[in-house]
Amino acid sequence: MITRTPQPPYYAVIFTSKLTENDQGYKEMAKAMEIEVAKESGFIGFESARDTIGITISYWQDLASIEAWKNNANHLRAKDLGKKQWYEHYKVRIAKVEKEYSS
Amino acid sequence: MITRTPQPPYYAVIFTSKLTENDQGYKEMAKAMEIEVAKESGFIGFESARDTIGITISYWQDLASIEAWKNNANHLRAKDLGKKQWYEHYKVRIAKVEKEYSS
Repeated sequence: MITRTPQPPYYAVIFTSKLTENDQGYKEMAKAMEIEVAKESGFIGFESARDTIGITISYWQDLASIEAWKNNANHLRAKDLGKKQWYEHYKVRIAKVEKEYSS
Repeated sequence: MITRTPQPPYYAVIFTSKLTENDQGYKEMAKAMEIEVAKESGFIGFESARDTIGITISYWQDLASIEAWKNNANHLRAKDLGKKQWYEHYKVRIAKVEKEYSS
């Protein structure tokens, strides 16, 4: 789904990843994190697609909300598992959305 | 591929789209645009994935380069075709990347 985001400015966390061949348990964790993140204050929504690589972008009202999610205990556990087992490599970028247009 | 981006700040153009069922010619256009965009001054690289929706993120050194690409004649033609034929809907977001970390 394409997220209905508010009038900019707001923030985007761009998470790009390449999975290892051992992706056992990955989908379940990803689904659990989708439910968990939706409870966070300041969370707007997310967009996700995967083929050769995966891209997940979550949208946030401010940097403080991103910081709180970064330190969420369940999220920290998921990230630990991800680094050990699922991700061959990944990149996280924090960006301020300045303009938006659509059709 | 995950793009090797420089030390922030730099810019990201986040293009999220949902295709119509008539995607004839779409892949060829997308490929042509990948070749065309790589010639642009200030272009750093792009990341792309598609399943239910498509997400393409291009990275740029500055806003002026993004503006020049926005007005590139071949790109304008591709966008016209896209709006008429390939995209059920889409969203473009211009964002300034402030932080990056990876593994």
